[in-house]
Amino acid sequence: MVDIASRVYNHHWKIDPIVRSLIDTDFYKLLMAQSVFRNRPDTQVTFSLINRTTAIPLAELIDEGELREQLDHIRTLSLSRGESTWLRGNTFYGKRQMFRPDFMEWFEGLRLPPYHLERVGDQYELTFEGNWPEVMMWEIPALAVLMELRSRAVLKEMGKFELQVLYARAMTKLWEKVETLREVEAVRIADFGTRRRHSFLWQDWCVQAMVEGLGEKFVGTSNCLIAKNRDLEAIGTNAHELPMVYAALAGSDEELAEAPYKVLADWHEEHEGNLRIILPDTYGTRGFLDNAPDWLAGWTGIRIDSGDPAEGAEIAIDWWRARGEDPTQKMVIFSDGLDVDKIVELQAKFAGRVRPSFGWGTLLTNDFRGLTPEDSLAPFSLVCKAVEAEGRPTVKLSDNPRKAMGPEDEVARYKRVFGVGEQVAREVVV
Amino acid sequence: MVDIASRVYNHHWKIDPIVRSLIDTDFYKLLMAQSVFRNRPDTQVTFSLINRTTAIPLAELIDEGELREQLDHIRTLSLSRGESTWLRGNTFYGKRQMFRPDFMEWFEGLRLPPYHLERVGDQYELTFEGNWPEVMMWEIPALAVLMELRSRAVLKEMGKFELQVLYARAMTKLWEKVETLREVEAVRIADFGTRRRHSFLWQDWCVQAMVEGLGEKFVGTSNCLIAKNRDLEAIGTNAHELPMVYAALAGSDEELAEAPYKVLADWHEEHEGNLRIILPDTYGTRGFLDNAPDWLAGWTGIRIDSGDPAEGAEIAIDWWRARGEDPTQKMVIFSDGLDVDKIVELQAKFAGRVRPSFGWGTLLTNDFRGLTPEDSLAPFSLVCKAVEAEGRPTVKLSDNPRKAMGPEDEVARYKRVFGVGEQVAREVVV
Repeated sequence: MVDIASRVYNHHWKIDPIVRSLIDTDFYKLLMAQSVFRNRPDTQVTFSLINRTTAIPLAELIDEGELREQLDHIRTLSLSRGESTWLRGNTFYGKRQMFRPDFMEWFEGLRLPPYHLERVGDQYELTFEGNWPEVMMWEIPALAVLMELRSRAVLKEMGKFELQVLYARAMTKLWEKVETLREVEAVRIADFGTRRRHSFLWQDWCVQAMVEGLGEKFVGTSNCLIAKNRDLEAIGTNAHELPMVYAALAGSDEELAEAPYKVLADWHEEHEGNLRIILPDTYGTRGFLDNAPDWLAGWTGIRIDSGDPAEGAEIAIDWWRARGEDPTQKMVIFSDGLDVDKIVELQAKFAGRVRPSFGWGTLLTNDFRGLTPEDSLAPFSLVCKAVEAEGRPTVKLSDNPRKAMGPEDEVARYKRVFGVGEQVAREVVV
Repeated sequence: MVDIASRVYNHHWKIDPIVRSLIDTDFYKLLMAQSVFRNRPDTQVTFSLINRTTAIPLAELIDEGELREQLDHIRTLSLSRGESTWLRGNTFYGKRQMFRPDFMEWFEGLRLPPYHLERVGDQYELTFEGNWPEVMMWEIPALAVLMELRSRAVLKEMGKFELQVLYARAMTKLWEKVETLREVEAVRIADFGTRRRHSFLWQDWCVQAMVEGLGEKFVGTSNCLIAKNRDLEAIGTNAHELPMVYAALAGSDEELAEAPYKVLADWHEEHEGNLRIILPDTYGTRGFLDNAPDWLAGWTGIRIDSGDPAEGAEIAIDWWRARGEDPTQKMVIFSDGLDVDKIVELQAKFAGRVRPSFGWGTLLTNDFRGLTPEDSLAPFSLVCKAVEAEGRPTVKLSDNPRKAMGPEDEVARYKRVFGVGEQVAREVVV
């Protein structure tokens, strides 16, 4: 029987909203927001959308009116009672009351601040300005909206059965990956694919397929809404935006050199155990580790997010040994452009030498490569980054010069301060 | 919203019925039933299930109780008012009132007669006895029930996402066939896959995918229920059971030799146009055509259902030429074990020389080959045939000795009467 009430209710929607909840975001955004809320609440920042795949003419594909409608809808969202209860009452990484009452009160009152949207050529300029804790919450929904509107633009030309077969193919493709991964002994994989997912429903499907297909080898998802709805672990620690903004705020080269460690000192006070994961590549992994204080070597692990991942892990292993730590007890989270082959290879190489773990992103939740003519649904490299803090430009170097960002003179200054020499350029997959 | 009423209503089902309508059957069964109803209504016949793929232990896979429940459910079915209206009011092959009032009245009162079911080793013996018009209506539902119970037996071991991916793979597989076929100029394809389908829902999906994917190249389905529900042409003419029973009833070798032509003489009186399709292979195509009366050469076309299909078509072309007919105006319907490669090959070979057409069966509606471990869902060769008429055994020779059936001495007699010599054995695919 048709549920007439549902059908009639659905008439009322003016749009089909892409982001329907403030916790349809990465768990680490909330952890970082709490840290920022506590330590730097009034910092004025600008976040900006950057399409690193300029061959995708987003402004040609996506109607500006539709984009505005979706962004406007996000501005109407607020934390629901059930979402708040979940954040307040849940155990995250074995800890109760991860989110403190003052932060929760702030979050319950949060509405996302205005955005600035302008078409420039065949791309959009989309920026967000204001207090750091508010502005930072735009990153994930903004990316998810752009990614999904691009998907919809391609899908709207397709017939009903053509669509069903498209998803059938995508499901088959993912399931073949799952079938490969479940044969890999003791592998640990989390979903990190919210930001560049094909769509919300597709991410939700992928996560559930991982639950059934991988069992305990699937350790959770970075997406809070999906973690809540599917009763899974929410996964995540911290990201580049913390050192990037701290660095931009530094008054001198000395303060700049200290900024990345200051971030982790603040983090150290707040978190323990599996939340103490070093993200060392913002201004070059090797220099960061060489100059790191000893207490950092006691942290639980490291996340490798750029450069050659095996090389990054070897650097970390050598560093832990040099600091008298036992690498076999350390967690190494690989999270850069992963797909099955790379996961299998890295697990084989590092199992037993460290505790490897995988944050699988875009090629989990958006691998539509080869499924449409001219590869019109292939994922692409879209990011939303802090570009300014208190009027000063931010800089990211990373271990791959193609992921670097910031004004040329500032990049040169950072390279000098952090002692970054020659770097090997690597293709940015997604 | 959950439709509570639907959910509660579904609690009441003791089984999930496989066959839910008396017109969930092949269109030609109804055409033949009408012919039999008119010409031989009181003939006592026995139909029997024959599993030609003895490697599939049906009685091991399928619970006897479940099988009985499904067969019992079929015996509760009667023609609904809407089904009757569709049969009475529709245009079939351009003709109104294809089914005459006396036949419709009989059909409206029909309930299927009892069945006899016995387990013998790892197979079932399933037979139906009684008046020909009633018993013949068991063929298609009996096959569909056995095929789908076998599918269910395999599927019940699978997880939810594993199941979804299985169907995703099957959809992808079918769609790739559709994508190949839609590039074939002027090809004409019908669904002939009811009897050995994976399941009803799957056949229904396949038909709808063909509608969207092939457009006018898809000419209809042999399944009356799907034709009705999806507003498609119902397709079909006549089958081996007519000459087999007529032949069994023959009192002498002379009458036996005449029996196949008597069938078509009766048919000739009743039908015209595209319904005048010769099925020549019951007792060998070559002999049948050599000895055929001239009026048969005037028929619209021929159906090739065993032997080498290209050779069968060439024999028909030569025969038409010898009888002064223009083969380019004749329809040749290929219907034996077709899959895409064979369709493409035959279309290329015969387009322009005749009007080729394809009755695509099991590898349309049940191609799950290679989709499960040990190929546990691969289709197999199950038939339900008239084995006796008025206590006398029936015989089928066909153009492939592996499809022959009947007692040895009778097979020998038929071969002599119909002048069938050496035959080339060909693998029976499905």
